This record gives sequence, structure tokens and C-alpha cells, in this order.
Amino acid sequence: MTSVNYDVLTPIRFLERSASVYPDNIAVVHGSIRRTYSEFHARVHRLAAALAEAGIKKGDKVAFISPNTPAMLEAHFAVPMIGAALVAVNIRLSPKEVGYIINHSESQIVFVDNEFADRIESVKEDLPHVRRIVNICDVSYDMPLPGTDYEAFLETGAGREAPFLVEDELEVATINYTSGTTGSPKGVMYHHRGAYLNAMGELIEFGLTQDSNYLWTLPMFHCNGWCFPWAVIAAGATHVCLRKVEPETIYTMIHTEQITHLCAAPTVLIGLSEYAVNNNIKLDHHLEIMTAGAPPAPQVILNMEQVGANITQTYGLTEVFGPHSICKWRDEWQALPPEQKAKIKARQGVPYIHSVHMDVVDPNSMTPVPRDGQTIGEIVMRGNNVMLGYYKDPRATSEAFAGGWFHSGDLAVMHPDGYIQIMDRKKDIIISGGENISTVELENTIYQHPAVMEVAVVSAPDPKWGEVPKAYITPRPGAEATAEDIIAFCKQNLARFKAPKQVVFGELPKTATGKIQKYKLREQEWGGEQRRTG
Amino acid sequence: MTSVNYDVLTPIRFLERSASVYPDNIAVVHGSIRRTYSEFHARVHRLAAALAEAGIKKGDKVAFISPNTPAMLEAHFAVPMIGAALVAVNIRLSPKEVGYIINHSESQIVFVDNEFADRIESVKEDLPHVRRIVNICDVSYDMPLPGTDYEAFLETGAGREAPFLVEDELEVATINYTSGTTGSPKGVMYHHRGAYLNAMGELIEFGLTQDSNYLWTLPMFHCNGWCFPWAVIAAGATHVCLRKVEPETIYTMIHTEQITHLCAAPTVLIGLSEYAVNNNIKLDHHLEIMTAGAPPAPQVILNMEQVGANITQTYGLTEVFGPHSICKWRDEWQALPPEQKAKIKARQGVPYIHSVHMDVVDPNSMTPVPRDGQTIGEIVMRGNNVMLGYYKDPRATSEAFAGGWFHSGDLAVMHPDGYIQIMDRKKDIIISGGENISTVELENTIYQHPAVMEVAVVSAPDPKWGEVPKAYITPRPGAEATAEDIIAFCKQNLARFKAPKQVVFGELPKTATGKIQKYKLREQEWGGEQRRTG
Repeated sequence: MTSVNYDVLTPIRFLERSASVYPDNIAVVHGSIRRTYSEFHARVHRLAAALAEAGIKKGDKVAFISPNTPAMLEAHFAVPMIGAALVAVNIRLSPKEVGYIINHSESQIVFVDNEFADRIESVKEDLPHVRRIVNICDVSYDMPLPGTDYEAFLETGAGREAPFLVEDELEVATINYTSGTTGSPKGVMYHHRGAYLNAMGELIEFGLTQDSNYLWTLPMFHCNGWCFPWAVIAAGATHVCLRKVEPETIYTMIHTEQITHLCAAPTVLIGLSEYAVNNNIKLDHHLEIMTAGAPPAPQVILNMEQVGANITQTYGLTEVFGPHSICKWRDEWQALPPEQKAKIKARQGVPYIHSVHMDVVDPNSMTPVPRDGQTIGEIVMRGNNVMLGYYKDPRATSEAFAGGWFHSGDLAVMHPDGYIQIMDRKKDIIISGGENISTVELENTIYQHPAVMEVAVVSAPDPKWGEVPKAYITPRPGAEATAEDIIAFCKQNLARFKAPKQVVFGELPKTATGKIQKYKLREQEWGGEQRRTG
Repeated sequence: MTSVNYDVLTPIRFLERSASVYPDNIAVVHGSIRRTYSEFHARVHRLAAALAEAGIKKGDKVAFISPNTPAMLEAHFAVPMIGAALVAVNIRLSPKEVGYIINHSESQIVFVDNEFADRIESVKEDLPHVRRIVNICDVSYDMPLPGTDYEAFLETGAGREAPFLVEDELEVATINYTSGTTGSPKGVMYHHRGAYLNAMGELIEFGLTQDSNYLWTLPMFHCNGWCFPWAVIAAGATHVCLRKVEPETIYTMIHTEQITHLCAAPTVLIGLSEYAVNNNIKLDHHLEIMTAGAPPAPQVILNMEQVGANITQTYGLTEVFGPHSICKWRDEWQALPPEQKAKIKARQGVPYIHSVHMDVVDPNSMTPVPRDGQTIGEIVMRGNNVMLGYYKDPRATSEAFAGGWFHSGDLAVMHPDGYIQIMDRKKDIIISGGENISTVELENTIYQHPAVMEVAVVSAPDPKWGEVPKAYITPRPGAEATAEDIIAFCKQNLARFKAPKQVVFGELPKTATGKIQKYKLREQEWGGEQRRTG
């Protein structure tokens, strides 16, 4: 709705405004492609008109299976603009999982990048709602397939007026399916108001301006890339697309495109840190990196600072449009020694400017825990950047919203200065002989051992203690350490009972977004055996 | 209203969040007073509780008559927080005018700074709605008066819970009375949603961060200081209060408080520029200045750049929460010669990030004018930062909102690049022998004459041409120029018919906020004679 003094809050307005204010700024870079805001705006309108022409109406769903390409960015504006919902599908899922998401969301048109055409090929016949599949033959994977191509589809919208159909800012703009560590993936519904405010928040907290160059190292199918498709456009900055997220390519792009900002999952960050050390990388300009998912290890922070980058940790979940809190840096911490700095940077911090409401509570009584940095409670959030709910799942929605707050399922402490720090996922925490052992705390300690590149601690059954911590470690190439070394190191640095009882070396299982899948390791340990539930 | 996924947009949330994120940052500086965010937050809550205790309920009005003091800042949070509306009254009005505003707004409590106690003394008996008058004895004007003092009033709220009563983001947060160049002042109603979004817009466009120090050279009673009371708090930055706006004091403050940002009416800016030249001022750090109301003269821009400050022009009106558009600087303009830069800086620019909707139209047909930088039309706006309407004046409201847009009454052209430039107020433009003469264009030309400090051009009656331009000039101290010099200078630089027919030297009448009152000059010219209406 628009009247003299009311206009729906929607990220679509950012594009209208930036296209008019910065028509000649570069909006999107992808290989040899450089498109201005005018051009990007025109392509978005063409896609919107083509979708409408193809019968997509208000409330319909449109799926995209694509890495971080210009088409994916265009989808983030064109689909919500006509009142439909964008379903950005994780490209690393199996065809069966992709099929589930397309069917559950009732997507009517599916756009699929040619590199990932196999994700849908084998399940094509079992997608009753799908009326059309469009192939995206992107320059960074130039292998044409038969069938309608994205560019040809776009052409069907040329010369037509693209309708703007957002009437209520609480309408669904996108649906993001959680990776679903247990049970089927759930469809998290994002509204226009939340997407607008969250994008504003990212712009402010990350300091984006019209001179920023943002590199796409975070998948756009993950919480709509933490709302950065919209935030970057709001700022009049430049999107730099990227098909493959590899350290060498990333450093090349940082240099050639003068990247000022990027977001990185913990694995990507570790990769960047390792590569920098091995190749003695020094940037010729300042780089801001945002990370989330796991606190960066002190050595990673130190390495990246020496490269010329600053790391900020944020925390959130798919259900709150990505980051909800940020470890906002205070001047008085600047003079601390590196180890202590890293300890503070490991905190999940304080709410973003737009999110405000966040607390750590006893999940049963909803009473806030004392601000003592000790007492563990559950992180709960509320406000304009909480999802509308899970699509077609009122029961899971009301469970998640119990007591008038969104329950994160993350266990944390509240420090006296109001900064939260995650201790563990509810289902990860280990209760060994009645004592709580935070797997995150234990992992952070093990990360400080020089031989360790990555680590995950999970619970393993134990006849005496009920359960005990077990560490899975990927060693640093060339480094040597034994299980005994690691255990001894932990006993030196932590209460002795917290040390792992077993240590295993090898590769760690990961999700599409680079998160370590602890539940898979836990399954190995527990198999059919009964463990307490989260 | 607050639910799991909806929270009212209100600037009050900025204070809650900043007080929790930056408790030890300095929120307010005033003389020897330095208050942290915690302290400021506590005082605001105390004031809110005291107001509630004194019987102020949702929908009630509370008036403040004060220069830029800490009390005035506190009022901007405490009054709207409890669902009441703040009426910040212009301190330069006469007692009769102040009385009109207090009565029209039905204000129930009036807070008055002791320096301006006379504004209310003589009309005290004629304020039927007023239940209480509270004196503000501020450190920068330490002359106690009998009666309840602000600090004593505050104490009545100590230890009480301050209620947060904003239920609908479209409720009235403040009422700002226009200076009313014709007829009675009108009460412009600001809503919480607009105040929130406008503050976000100021924060982003002006680049405020937690390290910024903002100097109060713009009156807070003017459009609630362009929403900066809220924007500065949102950023976690520091307010530096100021009772008297004089160049020498300003430069002292800029130095001692390391001011990074300030807003200035044209007269203040001219004063700063003159003082800097005469005293050879050079800042030891960068300063951002925002101005509005009249395009800064090229020489002023140049002078201030030499001081170490950057000037950005914005444009707006009380009815749109202050600035709506900004002359956003483009990289490609950086290399232009100073004169051309100044010409571009004289434009009113493009919409703020949150304002989006703005156009120049034929006010009758509402058709946009061509983007040719030539065709004159009226600036119209719509969106989240347009007032709810004029208080108790539905007729004036519907006139202002004719055709679904807010009519600014300003005449402008639209440049091909989408930047607007004001040519004149509707009622100021001179139609001489059928030709439009923009008084702004003429003033800008005259400003380039080295002998001119300030100028205002108005229409004067003429038997042959109907009306002709007449220039009122304040000369630069020590400079010498005759009327003939000025006229000749205009003929050299403009179409000859645009040159003033008469030139008068002397002081110019001004509003409380430093705007030149052209209507007073015009009245001198026209007296009882009939001139066409706007």
C-alpha cells in the first residue's frame, strides 16, 4: 500500500531509489560482465514482467537453484516485486531433497543453473506444481543445455510493464528451507518489512557505502545471503559474483575488484587464513569480513589481521533473516593483547540496530539469566526480523514461538556488559556425570593447539559417566600431534573433567554452507542407542 | 504493538538499544556535564515516569520552550515514549505566538528554559489547558527562578517504572508548528514510524557512527532538529549541546569536542565561513556539515573546504520531517573546477534512502515535468516520512495532500541526471512582463559578487511590467559596491531582463531558524496592493 504518508517497507524500493540515484554506478560484476544500476534495474523489470507473463501471480512461488550469479541477484528483486515468493534452493542438496523443497513450496517455475541441472533431472517427473523449468546458462559455466534459457525467458518480458504488487509489508517475500539436521527441511517465511529493515541493519553495521565492493563468498541460498542482495543495492554499492568459493580465486578477486566487504562461513574463513599464511598474502587495501556460525579461532583472527582484514562475528539463524546480533567492537578493547581480543571477538555480541530484542533466558520460566557470564540459558529473540513462521507447519511455528519469543535452540551466557556468548546448541551440550560440558568451549580450546585446523566435539556414550566428550580433528597439513597431546593440552587449559576422553583424526562432515554436521558424528557414536533429547 | 515478529517502529527503541550496547559511551556533553548512555537512559526514564505521575496520558501534549540543552534531548525520548506528543516551541517567537501554539496544541505541561521565561510570563493566565509550568535552570544559563525546577520534577519520577505506551507506529510522536509566514502557525504531526525511518536515513546519509560527535547548531525545535536527536542516539554517537550559536563558540567546540558533524542553517554557515576567513581557521580533523534552506554560495563552499569541512546540501520541509532529498555527491564531479562544483552543490538532489518518492510535476495535471533542467514544476513527495497532517486542520491537510502527494509549494526543475534544483517558492517567483524570473537564480548570481554577504530578491510592483525584481543586500563588512555595480554585474551574468531594477543595502529580516523572511520585504513593496497569489 502506498498513500501520501505510508509506503510499504520492501527491499524493492532500494532498487528503485538506487537506480535513480546511481544509474551509472556498477551494480553487478561477474567475470567480464559489468552492469550499471540502470542495466540491472532494467533486467529485473524484464524478469518481473516475464514471470507475470508466464502466469506467476501474487502468492505464487518461484524456485531458483543457482550459485552466486547475476540471475540469482535479479531473482531477489523480480520475484518479490510481483508479490510472489522466491525459494532459493541449496545447490548442494540431493535431487530428492531438492524435489521435496520444490513440492513442499509448490513452486511453479524452477530456474536451474546448468552446472546443477542434475539436481532436478531425475525428479523432474515428480514435481506436480512445476509448469516450467528454465535453464540458466551463466558465463562462468558456459555449457548450454536444450530447453528455454534464462536470457530467452527474460526477453519475453521486454517492452512490458513490470507490475509492483506488494500491498502489505508483512506479505511473504521469500521462503528459505532450513538444512534440517533433524526431520524434513522447514520453509522459513521472510516478510518484506523484515527484509527491508534487516538490509538497512546490514548496511549500517557493516558500513556499506556507494564505494563498497562486496564479494559473494556466502551463498545467496543461505538466508538470502543474510539480506546482502538487498543491502548492497540499498547502499548503491557493487555486487561481485562468484561461482566457486576457493581461497586463491577469492584473493584474486579481492585484488582485481578492490573488494572492501565479504561474508564468510567459518570454513571459508579458515581456508582464507591458511592460504594467506602459506602464500604470504598482504592486501593493498582494507577488507571487512563478517562471519557467523562459529567463533573464529584466535590464530585465524590474527592471521587475517596481518593480511589487512578485520573480522566481525555476528550471530543469527535462518528464522531471523540471518544475523541478529553482532560482536560490536569497543574502543577500549583495542589495546588488549591478541589472545584476549580473540576471546572477545568470539562472543556473539549485541543486537543489530534494527533487532533490539534479544535475551538469554531459562526456556521454561522465560526469566532472563543473571548477567554473570556463567549461567547458561537459551537465546530468544523477537521483533521485526523474526520470520512469519514455517510454511504449512503451524505446529512447528507455535513451538518455535512459545512464550511470545522465538526460541533459537542455542545455549548461551550473558556477560555483565550485555554481550552474549554461545556455549552450545541445546542438543550438542554434553552432560557428563551431571556436569555441563560446552562443546563450543572445548572446541575453542582445542583450536588453540597449533596442530589443529578444524575440530568438532560431540557426545559419546560412556557406561560410567552417561556421556563423555569426543573430539574429531582435522590436523593442519604437515602438523603432528597425538590424541594424548590433545587431551593433555585440554587438561592444562580447562577443568580436567572437560577434556575429551577420545580423539579421532580425519575429515569432518559439513553442510552445504560449510557448517560442521555434528549430528552425523553423534550418530556414529550413538547409532541406535538412546540419548537424551535436546 | 510487539509480537514475536512485529515491533512498532519508534525512535525510542534506538535509545533502549544504544543504552544496552554502548552503556559507557558519552551520550550528551553540555558545558561541564558529560553523561553516558546509561545515565542519559536513566534520566529519560525518570522524566517519562515523572510525566506519567503528573497525569500525562496517551495522546496528551507536552510543550518545551528551550534552546539546545540536555533537557530538550531528554524530552525527545521521554514524551513520545509514554504515548504523548512533544510540542517543541520556537524560542524566538513572541509570547502571543507561544501562547497560540500552547493553546492550539492543548499542551498540559509546559517546560520553559529560564532564559526564555518571559515568553510565557505575560500570557500565563490565558493558557486554559496548562496544568503546570516547569522551569529549566540549565547550567549554561544558571539563573534560578522560583517554582518547580526541571531537576526537582525529574526526581518525582525516580524509582518508578516508566511506561512504554507506543502501540501503533502511526501514532503522533511530536507536533511541530510551522513558522507560518501567512496566517496562523500550523501544527505538523510527526508519527513514530516516520521519525524512526528518517533518523535511520540521517544516520546513513550523514555517515554517523559510534565515534561521531554531533554539535547542536540547528535548533531542536525546528523539525525536531531534522530528527538528529534520534539519529545520533541510534548511532551511539555523542550529542554536544549549545545554547548560543555563534561562530567563535562553534569553532571552539569543534576543536575541544572534536566535532565531526553539524547541521547549519544558511546564516550560520555564512557566519562560519566569514569567521574562518577573517581568523584563518584550519581544523585539525575532518568535519561534515549539512545545510538546507538555501544553496550555499560557491565562496562559502570554497571557504569551508579550506577550513577542512565538507558541505552537503539537503532539502525538505517541516511536513516531511526535515530533509527529504540530499545532493548526493558523485565521484565524477570531484575533478570539476570549484565554480562548477558549487553549481552542482547548489542542487537539492535526490531522495534519501528512506524517502524514495519525490518528483517535479505540473501541480494541476500532476504530470512530471521533462528532465531537462529547464521546465519549472512543483516538488511533490509521498511516503513514510510525510506528516500525518496538520493538527486540527483537515482542510489545510487535504489541500496539502491534493492528488495523493504532499505539495511542497517549491518550484524546481528536474535535471537529466535525476537531481532536482529549486528555482523558487511558488509565491516568490516573479512574473515580469510574462517572463518567469527565479529569485533564487538571481540571488545565486548576486552572491557571486565579492561585496555581497547576504541577499534576498523579492517582487516589487511596476506600472509597465506588472512586477520587477528588487534586491535587498547585506554588504560584506568593509566592502563597497553601488546599486549600479550590482545591476551591471547581473546583466553580465544573466539574461538582461532578469537583473534587479532596484537594489537596497541593509539588514535582512529573518525567522528564528535563520531563514530570510522574504514575505516581510515583499509586504514593504506591495503594502495594501494586490499581488497575484501563489
